[in-house]
Amino acid sequence: MCIQVGEKMAARTGGKTVTIYINNTPAWEVPAHETLLSSLTEAGMILEASCGGQSSCGKCRIKLLSGQVVDRLGNPAEPMDDGRHLACQVYPAEDLVLERPVPAQVSSKGEIGDQFLEDFDLSPPVKKNLLRPVYPTLEHNYSLQEMIQQGIRAIEDREEDLSIAISALQDLARIAPEKPDEITLLRTSDQIIAFEAGDTLASLYGVAFDIGSTTVAGMLVDLNNGKILAAAAETNPQAAYGADVISRIKAARTEAGLNTLTSAIRNCLNDILEKLCATEGISNQDIYWATAAGNSTMEHLLMGVSPEYLTISPYVPVFKDLPLLPPKVIDLAINPGGRIRLLPNIASFVGADTVAAILGVDQDLTSKLTLLIDLGTNGEIVLGNKDKILVSSTAAGPAFEGAQLSSGMRAANGAIDQVTITDDVYVHTIKDEPARGICGSGVIEGIAGLLKAGVITASGRFISKERLALWPNKLGKRLKVENGQKEFVLVPAQHSATGRDISITQGDIREIQLVKSSIFTGVEILMENYGITFAEIEEVLIAGAFGNHLDLGSALGIGLVPSALRGKVIPVGNAAGTGAVKALLSEPIRERCRSIVNKALFIELANHPGFQKKFINNLSFPEGS
Amino acid sequence: MCIQVGEKMAARTGGKTVTIYINNTPAWEVPAHETLLSSLTEAGMILEASCGGQSSCGKCRIKLLSGQVVDRLGNPAEPMDDGRHLACQVYPAEDLVLERPVPAQVSSKGEIGDQFLEDFDLSPPVKKNLLRPVYPTLEHNYSLQEMIQQGIRAIEDREEDLSIAISALQDLARIAPEKPDEITLLRTSDQIIAFEAGDTLASLYGVAFDIGSTTVAGMLVDLNNGKILAAAAETNPQAAYGADVISRIKAARTEAGLNTLTSAIRNCLNDILEKLCATEGISNQDIYWATAAGNSTMEHLLMGVSPEYLTISPYVPVFKDLPLLPPKVIDLAINPGGRIRLLPNIASFVGADTVAAILGVDQDLTSKLTLLIDLGTNGEIVLGNKDKILVSSTAAGPAFEGAQLSSGMRAANGAIDQVTITDDVYVHTIKDEPARGICGSGVIEGIAGLLKAGVITASGRFISKERLALWPNKLGKRLKVENGQKEFVLVPAQHSATGRDISITQGDIREIQLVKSSIFTGVEILMENYGITFAEIEEVLIAGAFGNHLDLGSALGIGLVPSALRGKVIPVGNAAGTGAVKALLSEPIRERCRSIVNKALFIELANHPGFQKKFINNLSFPEGS
Repeated sequence: MCIQVGEKMAARTGGKTVTIYINNTPAWEVPAHETLLSSLTEAGMILEASCGGQSSCGKCRIKLLSGQVVDRLGNPAEPMDDGRHLACQVYPAEDLVLERPVPAQVSSKGEIGDQFLEDFDLSPPVKKNLLRPVYPTLEHNYSLQEMIQQGIRAIEDREEDLSIAISALQDLARIAPEKPDEITLLRTSDQIIAFEAGDTLASLYGVAFDIGSTTVAGMLVDLNNGKILAAAAETNPQAAYGADVISRIKAARTEAGLNTLTSAIRNCLNDILEKLCATEGISNQDIYWATAAGNSTMEHLLMGVSPEYLTISPYVPVFKDLPLLPPKVIDLAINPGGRIRLLPNIASFVGADTVAAILGVDQDLTSKLTLLIDLGTNGEIVLGNKDKILVSSTAAGPAFEGAQLSSGMRAANGAIDQVTITDDVYVHTIKDEPARGICGSGVIEGIAGLLKAGVITASGRFISKERLALWPNKLGKRLKVENGQKEFVLVPAQHSATGRDISITQGDIREIQLVKSSIFTGVEILMENYGITFAEIEEVLIAGAFGNHLDLGSALGIGLVPSALRGKVIPVGNAAGTGAVKALLSEPIRERCRSIVNKALFIELANHPGFQKKFINNLSFPEGS
Repeated sequence: MCIQVGEKMAARTGGKTVTIYINNTPAWEVPAHETLLSSLTEAGMILEASCGGQSSCGKCRIKLLSGQVVDRLGNPAEPMDDGRHLACQVYPAEDLVLERPVPAQVSSKGEIGDQFLEDFDLSPPVKKNLLRPVYPTLEHNYSLQEMIQQGIRAIEDREEDLSIAISALQDLARIAPEKPDEITLLRTSDQIIAFEAGDTLASLYGVAFDIGSTTVAGMLVDLNNGKILAAAAETNPQAAYGADVISRIKAARTEAGLNTLTSAIRNCLNDILEKLCATEGISNQDIYWATAAGNSTMEHLLMGVSPEYLTISPYVPVFKDLPLLPPKVIDLAINPGGRIRLLPNIASFVGADTVAAILGVDQDLTSKLTLLIDLGTNGEIVLGNKDKILVSSTAAGPAFEGAQLSSGMRAANGAIDQVTITDDVYVHTIKDEPARGICGSGVIEGIAGLLKAGVITASGRFISKERLALWPNKLGKRLKVENGQKEFVLVPAQHSATGRDISITQGDIREIQLVKSSIFTGVEILMENYGITFAEIEEVLIAGAFGNHLDLGSALGIGLVPSALRGKVIPVGNAAGTGAVKALLSEPIRERCRSIVNKALFIELANHPGFQKKFINNLSFPEGS
């Protein structure tokens, strides 16, 4: 659809390009027939667009300082009330000057749970050996390839020779004319993948990627000692094509769409890689090994495999498990002789991120009956221990990552992350910057505060404006009606960074009710299938960046965590990231991954008898919290 | 060196570009700091430059119709006597109009010896299977990957599952939403490499490449019946960097040089592939399997492996044998899921082309004591049978491919390929076009004719001009002295296509003497090592394009083939090409290749005691032929 419009526009604009200036600095030359959202995304300026460019989320606003934009019919586009345009709906008619858009930022994906990495066995599938080669002579004449094979046979007993990758032969040919006394070789169990002159045993690095729908994180690890040297995160650039996996799958339906989303995530991994290398001052050529975990859609898109089948009954993935692969397969800019491993998927909508989270917290090894809730863009629920594991997925998270909320944003600078409601409203923003929006922990604290103050009822409805106006405090003035719905203003327009009110609307409250009910209902159905009650759950692990910042009181207050579990909750940070790092450190862990995939039983919530009834029952907030 | 000059020029010209017109048609925009030879080569207009752009061969002449060219110091370049410039010595100072240069053309690399392909076992390593997939249902839920594994287990007994290549998963994801009843899969013995909807068993093609230093040939084969569908050949674009392997190795000494030569040959294979596909109207995506045979230098360059070590004592290759590889490794534009195999090398200067030639004529299977002489840019000599094989290499061929001869050219249109000398000279040109030069068979017939007529003596010297002038025929008028050396004019300037005399010079005769003496001496030394005499040789097989057109009488006349072998000589066409096709048809032949590499004993001629003496003795032509 988008492409067709683009093509029509291209015909009309005759392939014209215009220049976009940011605050008078020429920034990009862009085609006149692409929407500004599309061109800015292409240029690497990732705006949030949780609706996927459908004009409904209103997040991709840009401010035009000069120049004319047009709509898809070529008519001058009218700005919205705040004087801005939606980048997804307008095309440049001439050179434009834009106010610098605030790109979707990320601070981090939450801490890696270091406690789970202690005393961890170090056995990556890529190793280095030092050889002292015996060069051929006129009398003892053999190829360099044979020289290396002989060298290997001298240090280990083998039935078949190690094969030598072409890129390694290229290395060997480059370094051999100098006849170095020592050559370091890099290898897997069955192939030599690189040669380096001299003793380079000390430089051996790996990188683990945790590919979320919203945020992508990378961890650089020294494979000689297992230390995490650096971590970096970026917004998943696919965010410009929709917040949730379903929008991404839709966007990938055409071959061009699939290529776009695949390139976007591959480029993102390379950007993170570059950041990590720059931070530690190491060369990407010294990184030989990478692992990645994402949900099934993210993994299909990364591999360039159409995810369409995930949405066709009976909803199965194309692949679950893949062998070790060369990095070229996903254009990853580590040493081309290296290897990558994707963690395996369990089902269509329970992917390798869940496997990684289970690995991360050792849920497959513990005998404690554990409930793991991973709050990302999707909310995954895992119930069980080493004997039995049930998994499920809910479309829970986008709201917690700021999507689908009127003033929502991710936990980046300027996000309201703490809200205190007494006789008035007191907010805290990340890095104390002027408020730009509200992030997951902020909205939960806000709603919990409104509930406690009685501004909303257990059913989720605001009390009447008239009734609130009678209250002897300042809360009454904050309840407004805009566009026919009630909203409670946390930060008024004149104090916000955006020039708009930052509010919690009736719609936002409904959204959070839906999310918390999905999770609560999911937990109930998993418990029912498992045949247990709340009392038997020994530990509740809350994973995800969100989990780290979550105020447990507020989570209990709105019923996101059942109050019956009070006292058992432990935030565990980025469990999937921890799992990806574990897989990086240890190749034998692959067997644990396989066993998790085989053992984990996927429970499809929507098909469960009684789901609908439970879900509606769970929409209400707890009474008298 | 060349690069440094280019850089200096670039600094001086400030990165300027100019346009080159061919007969008033704008053809290329080229940088002002590159020689015309380099820019024309880059643009795909391959001129001959057997000296590698050192100005010594004089072959890369171009005619300027308008515009100014300058030398490397930026001074206006003076044209040569014929009004032309050497493209390797001049830089464009402004837009130029050139007369259309005659590109180095090739007609073919000689016929494949079809007789050796009869009743040949058809067992390529890449096969197709037809599956009738059982799609997953809500009750029987499995990934598509598992669906395929089950399908395979239903048709064959396997211990381990076939792995599925990522590109194949991409295919599967693309075709599965339509749920076709039949899926064709393409596989090796251990991996599925592609999927196609429906029954496509009939489309399965392969291509065999014979990579000569001068000419590269490709043969398209239907792998369902083993038929050669089409053949195509092109000039090896590396020819612009020198005629022989030593110049190529020198040119590849820097990383940039290596990359240039590697890209050149990879592009050439793709050009041939495109031609073959166009001829037969098939898609390159239906080609799943390719073999290639070249000499060790060609194979190292194709793989991007520096060939420098080949020229460093003790002169060993970096690799001999390589495993099956994906086509991406050499950027070959067949189906990305396909496979390629390079035939193995024997030694530094006896490569896979020799292995392929031995395979091609079944010398490793016969009990007849056979002498195989492959006349390409190098001349390879193989003596032996199934019990014992000796191999050697001489820098024989460039002269036969037209290099290093004053009027030499390859066997293309306008080349003098037949020369008859009676009371005057009668020449035949290929396709009867006006004479442009003289090719290998022409020069041998010419020298044989001059010998027989007594114009040259057995020592190779022209008789005196005065003596010849006394002869009662027209030959006397043809002997001239140019630049201090005698030459015999076959076609005078006024009748040639080039506007220059086409002659055999004293230097040309010396060149041919060197070549024929190398080969003759090589044969003698191999016989000596084998412990046999001419009488015991049962068959003499002459391979190479040249072998096909060779006039046996003339070859015996100049002593290229020892007269003792008269009556045993059989031209066998492109034996290396035949071998590459055999390797394409049959994977088990790999064992024969390995056994040839292990069995073949390389005899280094130059180190052989007595080589020098024999070589000098063999310089003379046979007396009284």
